[in-house]
Amino acid sequence: MREITTTALGATGAYWLPSTAKRTDKDFDVIPQGGTLLFQGDSITDAGRDRNEEGPNTGLGGGYTFLATAQLIKALAARNISCYNRGISGNKVFQLSDRWQEDALSLAPDLLSILIGVNDYWHTLNEYDGTVEVYERDFRELLGRTKEQLPEVTLVIGEPFVVLEGSSVSGEQWMPDFRAYQKAARGIAREFDAGFIPYQSVFDEASNEVAPTYWTADGVHPTLAGSQLMAEAWLQTVNRM
Amino acid sequence: MREITTTALGATGAYWLPSTAKRTDKDFDVIPQGGTLLFQGDSITDAGRDRNEEGPNTGLGGGYTFLATAQLIKALAARNISCYNRGISGNKVFQLSDRWQEDALSLAPDLLSILIGVNDYWHTLNEYDGTVEVYERDFRELLGRTKEQLPEVTLVIGEPFVVLEGSSVSGEQWMPDFRAYQKAARGIAREFDAGFIPYQSVFDEASNEVAPTYWTADGVHPTLAGSQLMAEAWLQTVNRM
Repeated sequence: MREITTTALGATGAYWLPSTAKRTDKDFDVIPQGGTLLFQGDSITDAGRDRNEEGPNTGLGGGYTFLATAQLIKALAARNISCYNRGISGNKVFQLSDRWQEDALSLAPDLLSILIGVNDYWHTLNEYDGTVEVYERDFRELLGRTKEQLPEVTLVIGEPFVVLEGSSVSGEQWMPDFRAYQKAARGIAREFDAGFIPYQSVFDEASNEVAPTYWTADGVHPTLAGSQLMAEAWLQTVNRM
Repeated sequence: MREITTTALGATGAYWLPSTAKRTDKDFDVIPQGGTLLFQGDSITDAGRDRNEEGPNTGLGGGYTFLATAQLIKALAARNISCYNRGISGNKVFQLSDRWQEDALSLAPDLLSILIGVNDYWHTLNEYDGTVEVYERDFRELLGRTKEQLPEVTLVIGEPFVVLEGSSVSGEQWMPDFRAYQKAARGIAREFDAGFIPYQSVFDEASNEVAPTYWTADGVHPTLAGSQLMAEAWLQTVNRM
């Protein structure tokens, strides 16, 4: 697992302002010339994407995928990369598995980014009878299958997160149970030498600056500011891999 | 007029990567605590915004307004700003005038950004009988009326632009006539001490790096990469005012 510390991320101190420093070939060196990037996940990734647009670089929705892609394709224009969003609202990890051939493997991504897990926990508060062991097992199986078919793929895993205070989902009541899902995602990232984005710390630190509801409306789905927060953390993680 | 040079902008060299430098109170000092920002213009500003969302910071469409807002509200979280998009596709400057009370003055923006003019020229190639003198007169009247009602407002004017080569609108045939509209916008920015974003140079320089069609599909409407290019130029201009 290649993780950057939240201090290095500087979640709240981080600043969008473009550096005047000249870009070098070392930036984003996990993204090759003509590379294909795929964003996978649930509603946070989906973010209202246009199902009629197959892409690349269009129909990306209004979330972190759109924002990160915009910044990437502008900064790396000469690399001519193709970014796809195949997130689907409500998905749990087993639902990614069900559509993995069509919605992931067939696109043959050079970089595959996955953010999954919040529903694997959240839905257990209602009718879903999955457990963290099921989540971990299915996630490992999914990545094993991916690596088998795409041995050169670069993996990026986002930590599932919840805003703890002041949210309508009452995030603080999710703990410590939800921590087990976060720990599982982190462990799997280590196991598969994936980039790992510690979104929980990113949101927790940002929530020290302003009210948590500034970053997510309900504790799970980011606002526009929260989406930009995620996009910057994503970009910084991938840039340093 | 407060204009930054395109060299300072570094249109193609500019780079999204957040600086780790600590933000200071001097950044974006034209944007006050609790400030209201309004983006006005035509289809480039509109960018498919959601007419059912009154905002702020929602329903902003998928163009430079959305991208600049995302970066601003994340970077300036503690300032708790409100951004609105009231661009309408196809508008010429006289159409802004028609809806100015409701769609601009009544929002009492602290910062008002206007990008208008491409249709004022483009439509003359078909049925519209306006001239550059009409554009200039109407634009001046619009800003005079604005300053009268909102004397403290900070104005930002974007240069209307067209991609010259390889576009379906055949931008090179627009010159030199279209240059007169650009010159008028620049002159008005000077007259009203507005920030001015030299989008034509921004797109021209970016088009030296990769094909012009990478930045706009048809010569007028930016792609996602072109929208990010605009957002960065906008942010850098406003940051330096």
